[in-house]
Amino acid sequence: MRVTQLFTKTTKDAPADEVAKNAQLLIRAGYIYKEMAGVYAYLPLGKRVLDKIIQIIREEMDSIGGNEISLTALQNSDVWKTSGRWDDEVIDVWFKTKLANGTELGLAPTHEEPLTKLMKNYIHSYKDLPVYPYQFQIKFRNEVRSKSGLMRGREFWMKDLYSFSRSQAEHDAFYDGAVSDAYARVFDRLGLGAITYRTFASGGSFAKFSHEYQTLSPVGEDTIYVHKEKGIAINEEVYTDEVLADLGIAKDELTQEKAVEVGNIFTLGTRFSDPLELNFTDENGDSKPVVMGSYGIGPSRLMGLIAEHFADDKGLVWPDNVAPFTVYLVSIGDVATQADALYDELTSKGIEVLYDDRDERAGAKFADAELLGIPYRVTISERLIADQKFEFTPRKSGQSEVLTGDELLAKLS
Amino acid sequence: MRVTQLFTKTTKDAPADEVAKNAQLLIRAGYIYKEMAGVYAYLPLGKRVLDKIIQIIREEMDSIGGNEISLTALQNSDVWKTSGRWDDEVIDVWFKTKLANGTELGLAPTHEEPLTKLMKNYIHSYKDLPVYPYQFQIKFRNEVRSKSGLMRGREFWMKDLYSFSRSQAEHDAFYDGAVSDAYARVFDRLGLGAITYRTFASGGSFAKFSHEYQTLSPVGEDTIYVHKEKGIAINEEVYTDEVLADLGIAKDELTQEKAVEVGNIFTLGTRFSDPLELNFTDENGDSKPVVMGSYGIGPSRLMGLIAEHFADDKGLVWPDNVAPFTVYLVSIGDVATQADALYDELTSKGIEVLYDDRDERAGAKFADAELLGIPYRVTISERLIADQKFEFTPRKSGQSEVLTGDELLAKLS
Repeated sequence: MRVTQLFTKTTKDAPADEVAKNAQLLIRAGYIYKEMAGVYAYLPLGKRVLDKIIQIIREEMDSIGGNEISLTALQNSDVWKTSGRWDDEVIDVWFKTKLANGTELGLAPTHEEPLTKLMKNYIHSYKDLPVYPYQFQIKFRNEVRSKSGLMRGREFWMKDLYSFSRSQAEHDAFYDGAVSDAYARVFDRLGLGAITYRTFASGGSFAKFSHEYQTLSPVGEDTIYVHKEKGIAINEEVYTDEVLADLGIAKDELTQEKAVEVGNIFTLGTRFSDPLELNFTDENGDSKPVVMGSYGIGPSRLMGLIAEHFADDKGLVWPDNVAPFTVYLVSIGDVATQADALYDELTSKGIEVLYDDRDERAGAKFADAELLGIPYRVTISERLIADQKFEFTPRKSGQSEVLTGDELLAKLS
Repeated sequence: MRVTQLFTKTTKDAPADEVAKNAQLLIRAGYIYKEMAGVYAYLPLGKRVLDKIIQIIREEMDSIGGNEISLTALQNSDVWKTSGRWDDEVIDVWFKTKLANGTELGLAPTHEEPLTKLMKNYIHSYKDLPVYPYQFQIKFRNEVRSKSGLMRGREFWMKDLYSFSRSQAEHDAFYDGAVSDAYARVFDRLGLGAITYRTFASGGSFAKFSHEYQTLSPVGEDTIYVHKEKGIAINEEVYTDEVLADLGIAKDELTQEKAVEVGNIFTLGTRFSDPLELNFTDENGDSKPVVMGSYGIGPSRLMGLIAEHFADDKGLVWPDNVAPFTVYLVSIGDVATQADALYDELTSKGIEVLYDDRDERAGAKFADAELLGIPYRVTISERLIADQKFEFTPRKSGQSEVLTGDELLAKLS
């Protein structure tokens, strides 16, 4: 894409009321736009980052048998009343609205109830199990405060996977096996593997623990206790002597850290299948409730976290896998022919290039390249092209090298 | 994908209160699920169809310089009050809700206002124009009645493109040129080109006409007058002697038809840029309001229309470009090894195959193949495989041929 065809521009200032560093940077770089606190629009570069995060998660969910669906935002109250979660005292972040005839509706903050009801159409026998529907969907949560940019939204993207299993054993195998493995791959591919911990958290009614995926970050709202050797952590809400004994961990093996919850996995047991009567007939002809689990990852929160975590004092620094483009191509001076040719060549090889073809001074282009955080800047100038050379500058190191065309292609392949 | 890995099943019955044929068929075939009237979830097969429709539209919007974004559902009232469209008397399909602090919000039924305000950050000079942001977004409209399945939703997918131009001439060139050409390509690729007419409709304040894209269908809610030779039509709302004279058309050249509006394009002029003060500085240093247009296509409505229009008494009949899979592979009897091999071979060639690997009788598999409407059924049976042959049955014609493996591959390439 050419910068001259991109309608956004970088700016010096973010909105005065925006206190979150992730949102400040993403707004200044033209990735997102603040509609109101906790409600952000995705502009072309931001949409590309969000889509890349979503695609990585999608591939991993498909790899473990996920079936992608898309449930609705508008919700009838009936199933939520049956499960006991319609009351604003129980779920305190409902947005509610009304049909023209006065019927009260909710905007889904999560989807256990409607999906459990839906699955009654498709689950009858043990032969219909297990199944793993998932979706990427905009969730609505009426948070009282929302000051963390993309990290705590009132309208935000969520990946929610649900498991429907025949037995606790079948559930446990999926929960501890396929899902946990897939989550590890997701965070690895997002560049967060080394700082993201599967973290013991409180389990609700049907399990001793649930697990959060917590990414270490000084901006985190959560406190966790990390066992670096074992690669696990404990949320402070379950940081008790009893739990430590259970896990065979001594206090002095743990370090206290701030972290951001980027995912969570829950054993739901029959919390929803009981009240909504999602049952199946087993091999012996007996009716049993389906054993459920739910598995969340927040793509928009991840985008905010990645933006904030890797940023430096010059701007954003995207990991390769989620960057909106791989190369930021800068032309300086009268080199349009050669820059156009390189743009076409890289693009034809499937390399995603944002080509700064503006009639702007080099300093402004370099500053934008740094703020935007595209992983590799390639510069063509009159001086360089006279020697058939290109300047190659990884955003992360900032160390420039002068390369031949072949060397450049080798670096980018 | 294997049918045994798909959690949906076909059913004999749609919900008793579902009167629209498109929704009845799509629910019976497991493509969608009715949450409430006008609010449908997309199940795995339905999500694939919707995604294919969206991808075709996306490619055509990108080809004319579109920049994809994603605006928000939750809306502050301020911009809508400025434009005069917050009042429920003016837009009578608002869903409204409240923040925890009592501030009233709306769920966007369209996005002219928030986008116009957003673009004030990026449009200052004539050099910043023209620009063409677009999005695929869930829109909310509080329709009093919603009985047409996917064709009139309360929560539905919309592609909305907006143009921001320097002058009426620049706007007109885009409106009558690039957009109209792209729309023609979209409907051609969706298999609706021959029955979709660019239709003169009332233009609002800033143009004599707007244009609707109307697809002929007996289930249509609109009445249009079609000039088949010229390939244009006139909506009955502007079917006057004056308009006919304008267009140089005589009444007896037109036929009256029922049709479904699948898209529309509007000249907005300065309807929104005036009240929201979206101005630019022209080449002479003068401040001028930006000239706007908006361009809609309804992907979910298109899905409903395509489902209903091409269906026959046996079920759905998807055009190749939007079908969830290209091939429905049926194994009959003890042929799992050969069927698995063919599935792998077709899949490895990039052909999308839904493989009915169930332990079911042939009649049930054939009936499902017909209801699901996958374009090409390929059958492997013990008898056929003994001769190294496959049965190939296009859904549309129902005419089976017995083919060799090479002949089959040639048909599907």
